[in-house]
Amino acid sequence: MKPTGPIPSGFSTIDGELAIAGRPVSSLVQEAGGTPLFVYSEEMIEQRIAALRSAMPARIEINYAIKANSFPPVLSSISNLVDGMDIASGGELEMVQSLGYDMDRVSFAGPGKRDSELEAAIAAGVTLNLESENEATRAVKIAERVGTRPKLAIRVNPDFDLKGSGMKMGGGPKPFGIDAVRVPALARDLANAGCDWRGLHIFTGSQALSADAVIEMQAEVLDLAFRICDEAGVDLPKLNMGGGFGIPYFAGDEPLDIAAVGVALEDKLRGLKDKYQKTRFFIELGRFLVGEAGVYLTQIVDRKVSHGETYLVTDGGLHHQLAASGNFGTVVRRNYPVAIASRFGAPPVETANIVGCLCTPLDRLADKVEVPQAEIGDIVAVFCAGAYGASASPSEFLGHGPAREMLV
Amino acid sequence: MKPTGPIPSGFSTIDGELAIAGRPVSSLVQEAGGTPLFVYSEEMIEQRIAALRSAMPARIEINYAIKANSFPPVLSSISNLVDGMDIASGGELEMVQSLGYDMDRVSFAGPGKRDSELEAAIAAGVTLNLESENEATRAVKIAERVGTRPKLAIRVNPDFDLKGSGMKMGGGPKPFGIDAVRVPALARDLANAGCDWRGLHIFTGSQALSADAVIEMQAEVLDLAFRICDEAGVDLPKLNMGGGFGIPYFAGDEPLDIAAVGVALEDKLRGLKDKYQKTRFFIELGRFLVGEAGVYLTQIVDRKVSHGETYLVTDGGLHHQLAASGNFGTVVRRNYPVAIASRFGAPPVETANIVGCLCTPLDRLADKVEVPQAEIGDIVAVFCAGAYGASASPSEFLGHGPAREMLV
Repeated sequence: MKPTGPIPSGFSTIDGELAIAGRPVSSLVQEAGGTPLFVYSEEMIEQRIAALRSAMPARIEINYAIKANSFPPVLSSISNLVDGMDIASGGELEMVQSLGYDMDRVSFAGPGKRDSELEAAIAAGVTLNLESENEATRAVKIAERVGTRPKLAIRVNPDFDLKGSGMKMGGGPKPFGIDAVRVPALARDLANAGCDWRGLHIFTGSQALSADAVIEMQAEVLDLAFRICDEAGVDLPKLNMGGGFGIPYFAGDEPLDIAAVGVALEDKLRGLKDKYQKTRFFIELGRFLVGEAGVYLTQIVDRKVSHGETYLVTDGGLHHQLAASGNFGTVVRRNYPVAIASRFGAPPVETANIVGCLCTPLDRLADKVEVPQAEIGDIVAVFCAGAYGASASPSEFLGHGPAREMLV
Repeated sequence: MKPTGPIPSGFSTIDGELAIAGRPVSSLVQEAGGTPLFVYSEEMIEQRIAALRSAMPARIEINYAIKANSFPPVLSSISNLVDGMDIASGGELEMVQSLGYDMDRVSFAGPGKRDSELEAAIAAGVTLNLESENEATRAVKIAERVGTRPKLAIRVNPDFDLKGSGMKMGGGPKPFGIDAVRVPALARDLANAGCDWRGLHIFTGSQALSADAVIEMQAEVLDLAFRICDEAGVDLPKLNMGGGFGIPYFAGDEPLDIAAVGVALEDKLRGLKDKYQKTRFFIELGRFLVGEAGVYLTQIVDRKVSHGETYLVTDGGLHHQLAASGNFGTVVRRNYPVAIASRFGAPPVETANIVGCLCTPLDRLADKVEVPQAEIGDIVAVFCAGAYGASASPSEFLGHGPAREMLV
């Protein structure tokens, strides 16, 4: 038997079925027209953002990194709840444009921005988080051609990272941002060149569950930002402090203590220099806002035994849930939280492997988990599916196509 | 410095550029309308299949597993060169149907076939490789309803695997096929039920480079198939012996010696029992037929230095090349064969990291490789991109969308 991750709170049971937003999964599947299906709970997203606002200092603003989940209804709903949106490509620019969103609240980070992407973003009035001196030169040139004063910030590659984070994005050589020591000179140049200087973006890592690590990182980010702007002799209109707030995926994971993070940040922001009194401070979150609000539902199409082990074969798989299958930035595969949604809360009676329908041994949704007796037609839920699920999986693999998605 | 895998033979240099099918990459990119671009060489696929036919015994037939690459022009071209096609979903069924292909030469394997997929396949006259007793029961029932005599084969979960294979698909408990000991009873039942009995499918693993391992596996597959049919008292109209022929991806990999495999197989097939004189023997290959015939081309959009390391940032990445980034069934990331295609054959002058444009540290195309001086606008080639590239990558991730594809 192998453990599964903790099921996020906020779900209930109705007539022995998992209920999302007060509706049993069978009803959701019926409305959607079948499985596989991602269901996202609007209420859970709202509650998460409200809890975050209440834990964070009042002056902290919240950006949503849309790469986590850009399903249009989710994006539209979140756009009314956050203070800004972060995009990472020309495609994502089009997504926020189609919402009619205020482009002054959008910033664009990402190495490898093409000229066409820079031009579209500058023309739209989006803030560019510059990833290199080269990109700065290209952006300034394109803005001249377009005849617009570009909104420019610099993404800093800090000399530290977010300890214990799932993905480190700072500390040592990195393709992201500009090495901290070179930032003051560029900031000065941009300000002198008459650009609309928007400040700094410092992203150090993602998926951290330790409040101490986040507190230490945020303090370092603030110190670094002030040091850079002091040295450059420029203002700091905005500081994107990055994100890094993780969610529990695996057995033993504990939720991040955001109250502790908020208290420490409040303390750190007390007694700012006059120069930084007007600075707007942002945290940029994706997974933390939407990850736990999403559930992936897939139906059992076969139940079989091989050499004494039971396999529940579903109509879903890694083509929708690459990360849950253990094939996306994971060294050792561990089980996400999973359950038999159509027998939710029923006592476990057997150990089974839950696999997808792809003809590859990589397609595993849960290894040796304790489940109630499940038969063909039963529905499996994979939790923590709200972020980097549908959008970060190879949906065309083996010709099965994308899953359905719905916001309830 | 880290090594790269060996560049497949068959490419040339024209005016200092990599040439595919006799055309320099700049011309191919121009024709396609830009990068990122997958280019597949029809000639190299033809040559590979011809070499394989000449190495294999005359009576061995070749099936193409379309999951490796189902780009319509590739599929159409290969359909004229092979003896059959293997599909793994209802979506892939539609792909071969749209070719107007002879459905009697198509077989459908894959755990988790839905009723709707079984019905479509049965109605179309495709052979089902049954993955469980349960699936057999469902198929027979559906065929009755459709009013067709179903073409049925059994996929066997053998008690051995393909040694040294990248992915093991036999040996011990598996979600694929039916445990060998239970196959004779089911085969008898199907034959007695008046189904159109098509034989066995035994797939043991993939991506093996050792001829000895393939030879041993093929001998075991044949012995197992004969043992099952002897015990069941049924004929063996067709035997799909699986595939497993690998291609070199990494430094130190040597091509599979297909001549040796062919000689051993010829030997093994000599002196077949009368009962098996009429059996048709198939090998099922995907990657081996198309993998080395494909090249992924992506343009450098930024060149930057961080803490002394050089990064070449491209407009492509893991959203098209998940496996090359080291995030698909790989424990330790190693470099695929890569080159600066626009300076092909120029002497290396520096060590650089080649990364994609995604805002994640997972997006690496080559770590610390020796390359000629490359600038913005230069084109990077990632080789061995013909199989499990475009189709097995999360193209929607971060909103960049799929790459262009062309067959030349």
